Amino acid sequence: MKARTRFRARPGLKLREEDAGATPLRDDGGKHPKSKEQIKAHERGLTDELTAKIALHQQMLFSQRQQKVLLVLQGMDTSGKDGTVRALFSRINPMGLRAAQFKAPSLDEAAHDFLWRIHPHVPGAGEIAIFNRSHYEDVLVPRVLKLIDAKECKRRYAHIADFERMLAETGTVIVKVFLHISKEEQRARLQARLDDPEKQWKFDENDLVQRKRWDDYQDAYERAIAATDAEHAPWYVIPADSKTHRNLLIASLLLEVMEDLALRFPDTDPRLSKLKVE
Amino acid sequence: MKARTRFRARPGLKLREEDAGATPLRDDGGKHPKSKEQIKAHERGLTDELTAKIALHQQMLFSQRQQKVLLVLQGMDTSGKDGTVRALFSRINPMGLRAAQFKAPSLDEAAHDFLWRIHPHVPGAGEIAIFNRSHYEDVLVPRVLKLIDAKECKRRYAHIADFERMLAETGTVIVKVFLHISKEEQRARLQARLDDPEKQWKFDENDLVQRKRWDDYQDAYERAIAATDAEHAPWYVIPADSKTHRNLLIASLLLEVMEDLALRFPDTDPRLSKLKVE
Repeated sequence: MKARTRFRARPGLKLREEDAGATPLRDDGGKHPKSKEQIKAHERGLTDELTAKIALHQQMLFSQRQQKVLLVLQGMDTSGKDGTVRALFSRINPMGLRAAQFKAPSLDEAAHDFLWRIHPHVPGAGEIAIFNRSHYEDVLVPRVLKLIDAKECKRRYAHIADFERMLAETGTVIVKVFLHISKEEQRARLQARLDDPEKQWKFDENDLVQRKRWDDYQDAYERAIAATDAEHAPWYVIPADSKTHRNLLIASLLLEVMEDLALRFPDTDPRLSKLKVE
Repeated sequence: MKARTRFRARPGLKLREEDAGATPLRDDGGKHPKSKEQIKAHERGLTDELTAKIALHQQMLFSQRQQKVLLVLQGMDTSGKDGTVRALFSRINPMGLRAAQFKAPSLDEAAHDFLWRIHPHVPGAGEIAIFNRSHYEDVLVPRVLKLIDAKECKRRYAHIADFERMLAETGTVIVKVFLHISKEEQRARLQARLDDPEKQWKFDENDLVQRKRWDDYQDAYERAIAATDAEHAPWYVIPADSKTHRNLLIASLLLEVMEDLALRFPDTDPRLSKLKVE
């Protein structure tokens, strides 16, 4: 089954019923029991093959300069947004790629509508843009912290829907991914950051504060996903407790999306093909 | 000898006296004659090792969020600016990297001073920015096409020098690279673009027009390099007829620069190191 079908957010999505530890592409069948390390290495290899194919499609996308691809990555702290960016896009020409990271808004950003800081980063013709967090932060954090009420939140869902429809109608293929990890996996990853001297700088005490509101955030995600899922801007819920399997799933998903664009290099010009450079 | 010393632009630089085909790091000594393909594969492997080290330094740079690195790539058409970006930065987290490409200015850009479109793309604390072409275009194309006179060109050299001094004084390490190819190598590369159906889209007939002014461009480069080379914003002239050797040289150069920053991960916090996540 295609990743696009299998992981598409279903109506009435309940995150607690989605298995964050699922590894549906992991085919061991019990016949050739492999070690965890062997499985990971195998999945890394498969992901490399897929990303090489994605890179070829990206080159064709860039050569055509017509279509645009926007990949939105959302998920709880430590869910693997940075890791996904690194794993998937290392082969892509940075010139055809825009990566944007949205943190807590600055004073200047907060003084504008919440789409103001987002708009400059959407992909141009021929580009792939990745949003590491996005405009969805503005219907998550402020809602959980009760800085906005349900009515304002609903208004924002509508603003997001309008904005994404406009992007789609002006040539942007939108793919929205929720990296779904379990609460226990987050605990282990936060602990690992604390324990590793080369990773402790990534630790933010605010992550522990947010972790206490885990259920509220899961609710806020469910509502946001339900309110903004659309054929032209679909949400995918990707089980993300396994890093290598998560990368493999997202690479599969993105390759399917790129293949559907039916990209190719522009036709050659017979006159140019005969030209000799002096 | 360090790449920083060996390839630093010398006072009185004459590009026609610099060997674009030089491969000083290619150690065959005639003892173990290898095929061209073996040499290339070997150089790719060495470059991969260096870029892995650069990636580690970049992570430390990003973790410290203090210093900034700006790599400027200039060179004639087909000199390998895009290829260099791809080869060197595929391992780096796109989140700590800004890649900016400067083409012919838009009407809006041309209506401003020539540094106006450049400034938004300089690196922030913890970032590496790569300029694929740069503010130097404005003392090359308009000078060769005689759209500006020698006096205006000199004024622009001074604007560039002031701008780069300001960047250096606010924490930016600047590395400026001229990718030096021979006129014959450019001929071969343009011809290859014409002949390959998957590359013909990259061919621009204007490249042939510019090629006719080869000597004028070389002169313009010599003058610009001489006028703007500085201890805090040095120019390097990299022989670039061999793609794999060029990548190896630039990786060596950049690693030397990063090593000199004496980067490390931030100190761990003993209080955090004892913390247990619940």
